[in-house]
Amino acid sequence: MKFLVRLLALVAPLSLAVGAELRGTGDLGVVVERAEGSVQIVDTTRRTRVGRITGLGDLSHATAVFSRDERYAYLFGRDGALTKLDLLAGNVAKRAEQAHNSVGGAISQDGRLLASSNYTPGGVRVFSAETLERVADIPAEYGNGQLSKVVGLVDAPGQRFVFSLFEAGEIWVADLHDPKAPKVQKFKAGKEPYDALISPDGRYYIAGLFGEEGLALLDLWNLDAGVKRILPVYAKTDEKLPVFKMPHLEGRALVGDYWFLPAVGHHEMLVVDRRSWEVVKRIPLEGQPVFVIARPDDRQIWVNFALPDNDKLHVIDTQTLSVVKRLAPGKAVLHMEFTPKGEEIWVSARDDDRLVVYDTETLEEKARLPADKPSGIFFTARAHRLGL
Amino acid sequence: MKFLVRLLALVAPLSLAVGAELRGTGDLGVVVERAEGSVQIVDTTRRTRVGRITGLGDLSHATAVFSRDERYAYLFGRDGALTKLDLLAGNVAKRAEQAHNSVGGAISQDGRLLASSNYTPGGVRVFSAETLERVADIPAEYGNGQLSKVVGLVDAPGQRFVFSLFEAGEIWVADLHDPKAPKVQKFKAGKEPYDALISPDGRYYIAGLFGEEGLALLDLWNLDAGVKRILPVYAKTDEKLPVFKMPHLEGRALVGDYWFLPAVGHHEMLVVDRRSWEVVKRIPLEGQPVFVIARPDDRQIWVNFALPDNDKLHVIDTQTLSVVKRLAPGKAVLHMEFTPKGEEIWVSARDDDRLVVYDTETLEEKARLPADKPSGIFFTARAHRLGL
Repeated sequence: MKFLVRLLALVAPLSLAVGAELRGTGDLGVVVERAEGSVQIVDTTRRTRVGRITGLGDLSHATAVFSRDERYAYLFGRDGALTKLDLLAGNVAKRAEQAHNSVGGAISQDGRLLASSNYTPGGVRVFSAETLERVADIPAEYGNGQLSKVVGLVDAPGQRFVFSLFEAGEIWVADLHDPKAPKVQKFKAGKEPYDALISPDGRYYIAGLFGEEGLALLDLWNLDAGVKRILPVYAKTDEKLPVFKMPHLEGRALVGDYWFLPAVGHHEMLVVDRRSWEVVKRIPLEGQPVFVIARPDDRQIWVNFALPDNDKLHVIDTQTLSVVKRLAPGKAVLHMEFTPKGEEIWVSARDDDRLVVYDTETLEEKARLPADKPSGIFFTARAHRLGL
Repeated sequence: MKFLVRLLALVAPLSLAVGAELRGTGDLGVVVERAEGSVQIVDTTRRTRVGRITGLGDLSHATAVFSRDERYAYLFGRDGALTKLDLLAGNVAKRAEQAHNSVGGAISQDGRLLASSNYTPGGVRVFSAETLERVADIPAEYGNGQLSKVVGLVDAPGQRFVFSLFEAGEIWVADLHDPKAPKVQKFKAGKEPYDALISPDGRYYIAGLFGEEGLALLDLWNLDAGVKRILPVYAKTDEKLPVFKMPHLEGRALVGDYWFLPAVGHHEMLVVDRRSWEVVKRIPLEGQPVFVIARPDDRQIWVNFALPDNDKLHVIDTQTLSVVKRLAPGKAVLHMEFTPKGEEIWVSARDDDRLVVYDTETLEEKARLPADKPSGIFFTARAHRLGL
């Protein structure tokens, strides 16, 4: 017995050395440090950094999804690399060069498949979440065998991925029940879809159109009805006002009876009725909105901005439909992520090399953490949500 | 080196014996085995049992909530015991006898406080989620210092707990920002509230009334408006039809434009408009409904039943508003829980000593696991949701 105790004493430090601490994973997250090609692993309960993984390549625009056990983060790099990070061991579990130029990815409803949204070669590739082996290739072919860039890729119920083809002007719905033989349905969407969202219930897929007015809506419960054009006012119609950055479209901005949508190139937010798709109100803002995200309890909308107003954050009350707070977390506010039940929000201020954590009720700063040119912030709770 | 390898080989089985495996916690859950006073720890990715914890006392009607890191389950026993289970170590981390007769509990928005809903002594007690030390006591006093039974306890945004007092006919909203001095607001609700729900966004608290008609609605965004009586048809008005079991009220039955509510004592489900609170449709069922829960993508509602129909499950399509499938998982179907993204559902069949897992798309059985008189099933993803 004494011998066993001594054995244990010897072995214990070994497992600690690789960061393999016994702990839950529901309060972890990753923060992308784009310039360094690294990610921080963070703990949202203690508001601290618990690890850092380096050498991950070009992480500009990098996004992350999570395994259904919330142990692994899958990082989609702009350079086409797909990396599986072990948040418990604090290291790279697996890595694959899956394309030359990529803009994000998604994880299937059952957590067994990953899909990447690629510019070059244009299309979607599907991988085993366990091994990162490629299981399917869906080239975005149109016209005379040309390949279109793919944007707005999301997971949807029924083991499906939905995405948009920029040059082709189409929305595709790919059923991956049999990964070896994906079933793809194609829909005409309109000119140059550039981004898309899916509603939190996974029913409505909505693509923004760069080349024409309005938004393209596909009801996944009624595919036979095809794409419907909605909200004709939604476009960058005023040529005098340059668009500094096309806004992102976010499913997490459907709140009660309203969609909250960033106006393109204008200093305002559109409040749109969920049933009629009429604009109910335009809320004036102090910049061109980029991300528009609802607090998990739907009581607030948080907005960041394009240059030259990207040092600001606005908080909008969804009951009074007005701006209730203006915050200044630092230079180049690129992203924000709520804790799962919404009591706090983490914000990245790239050019001030910091993360700022706010209490969403008092709107006071609660913590400030150093980070190297931070951009995207992603918490493991995304593993449990459709479309994230 | 050889020596070390041998050491590791010796020690590995030891750590497996205490269950202290390095693993994520996002795909874990607990299943209450009420007769034995034990819980199973289950893995929803592999559909297996990964542990069992025994000696937990009277677990009839026991419910569980989870720590925000998804490592610990807090079990509220009928006998007033509060137990903190370590899902990774597979053992009891802490245990407290907090009351004599209890019917459930909740965890605060920030995960730091637990609240228990007690019959005896009537009231709510608040505990540190870390240590289980009691930090606050809120006796449900009314009239001449009598104590009321407390039911329908939920967590709400703003570090609040909301609950109903059966004998007092009141709804209380307790603000726990300062646990040492809870601020309690009291509202007249109606005769004998017996259960309650909160909408998934944490805004609407709705209590069922045993002693009179209709439901009591409190809008937590507008407390000044007080309690409003809605849905006057909601009551057990037909005295010829005995009520075998009062249905549970579930926030997870708000779907798009409709609430789906179990009719009391009738063989039907009410479909109620979200804005007007008018009954839009009555869906006929083959028994008195008990639990009515929406699949996470809102496309289906699953229903179980009171005696003598408690061997049935009905699946309702939320678009056609009709029953699309009748299932027979076994005798005494007590509870069901969806996987976080809704691709599967776990069902407990108490009197057949088994759990049945269904694919929610094909509605085929995918797995069957033995369990000793299973009742409640709770997955860790609840940690990330308001009101669960």
